[in-house]
Amino acid sequence: MKIFIVGLGLIGASYAQGLKKAGHEIYASNRTEAVVEQAIKEKIVEKDNDMSYLSKVDLIILGLYPKHNIEFLSKHKHLLKKGQIITDVSGTKAWMTKEIEALIPDGVSYTSHHPMAGKESSGYASKDYKIFKDANFIIVKGQKSGPKDEKILKNIASDLKFGKITITDAQTHDELIAFTSQLTHVIAVSLVHSDHLKETPQATGDSYRDLTRIAKINEVMWTELFLENKEALLKKINDFEKELDQLKKHIETNDKESIQEYLKSAKEKRKVFDET
Amino acid sequence: MKIFIVGLGLIGASYAQGLKKAGHEIYASNRTEAVVEQAIKEKIVEKDNDMSYLSKVDLIILGLYPKHNIEFLSKHKHLLKKGQIITDVSGTKAWMTKEIEALIPDGVSYTSHHPMAGKESSGYASKDYKIFKDANFIIVKGQKSGPKDEKILKNIASDLKFGKITITDAQTHDELIAFTSQLTHVIAVSLVHSDHLKETPQATGDSYRDLTRIAKINEVMWTELFLENKEALLKKINDFEKELDQLKKHIETNDKESIQEYLKSAKEKRKVFDET
Repeated sequence: MKIFIVGLGLIGASYAQGLKKAGHEIYASNRTEAVVEQAIKEKIVEKDNDMSYLSKVDLIILGLYPKHNIEFLSKHKHLLKKGQIITDVSGTKAWMTKEIEALIPDGVSYTSHHPMAGKESSGYASKDYKIFKDANFIIVKGQKSGPKDEKILKNIASDLKFGKITITDAQTHDELIAFTSQLTHVIAVSLVHSDHLKETPQATGDSYRDLTRIAKINEVMWTELFLENKEALLKKINDFEKELDQLKKHIETNDKESIQEYLKSAKEKRKVFDET
Repeated sequence: MKIFIVGLGLIGASYAQGLKKAGHEIYASNRTEAVVEQAIKEKIVEKDNDMSYLSKVDLIILGLYPKHNIEFLSKHKHLLKKGQIITDVSGTKAWMTKEIEALIPDGVSYTSHHPMAGKESSGYASKDYKIFKDANFIIVKGQKSGPKDEKILKNIASDLKFGKITITDAQTHDELIAFTSQLTHVIAVSLVHSDHLKETPQATGDSYRDLTRIAKINEVMWTELFLENKEALLKKINDFEKELDQLKKHIETNDKESIQEYLKSAKEKRKVFDET
């Protein structure tokens, strides 16, 4: 299949690399042109690559930040052709998918998706298609989803060796992401900031390292993600604080039985993740 | 060296296994006698093992829960001999070390330590001396610490392939542990309990799994650890909530610049851990 990837950052470049290996023809654009040149040199992107391929490919994958995806489409929508499918890899969906749906011409279909994979480092040089192996893949259907989109995206997921595929709508997606991805990053950075002891680096077990690894964050991208999904995220922070306060209260009141029950039920709930 | 290990749970049994491999003579006791029989069968514990060795060994390692360590010593202190060294592997220190110091006869020294390693599973069958490789090892000196204790404990750490060794006092230890170990477990279980969406297991990336892995907790042991270190832990929970609230406020007020600055400084602070 002919695929055009917009933006060769960590995810875009890793897609390009993995999809090229799977036998697809890859075209791409990137704000810094030198990155595309590098991808051509590495034989990930076809050597006759240029923006005109936006009209010739079967699938367009938007790999920029949400607002830049919208800017890109606004600028280049005249190049889109009937029968083409657009998708994107953004971390928040609801507001962006509405804007994209309003932008694209009739006959072009759009189905968003979210690859649940990443890395602490960013940019083309960090690309590694192996980060997708067995990761979750969420397909987000909307008003402009076409009849073939689900099958095409499932093939992409399979080519990149993703694991479980879930199909949902944009609002449920954003709530899920607020919980599993954004809240966890909020917790990690808050935990790092609440470290006030000089000996901490010498006295740390795996727990603290595991809980704070994702604090090595791309601050520009995550600030945008937090603000774009603000309502859902604030709700999840409040839910979490409610739970934390309940456990704190059990500890304050020496309520041994309630603490044990709280820990035990958390253990049982968490075990589900190792079984699914 | 002759070593007596009291309690063949996860840590005690892993110590026995690793120290035997390093060439020491291991004796042991355990509430359920069959576990000791099994360790003898596996040639980890010497076959003529019995409680009388408590008088004959150079080093006694207490591997029980804090209050059971104290009960054990109360019951068996008449067997202790001058020149012997006692240590323990407990997760909280200040209150227990004071009680142990008051219990032991003159001429017996006591220096506590804390192996910063563990596993989600517990008990003899889970033993694995490799969990100590490169882990942090904290030596906690007190009023009954003898002149040879530090060297002996450093040898034990080296035999078990521990990484960095830190020397501190019981109070600083407890504050460190409240932060790096207990607070992280409090966060993990609270996070699991704040999951209210049925799709979560299908839409989870590495972040949520990493932050909640330790929620698969031994609820009896951790309830005891939380309550024994209650004051320090409550302070750390409050510190963490203060940070969380600050970031939440930045998000609520759309304060993009402050969020970015908060994330950036967390990243820089966290990077120290990969360099130390």
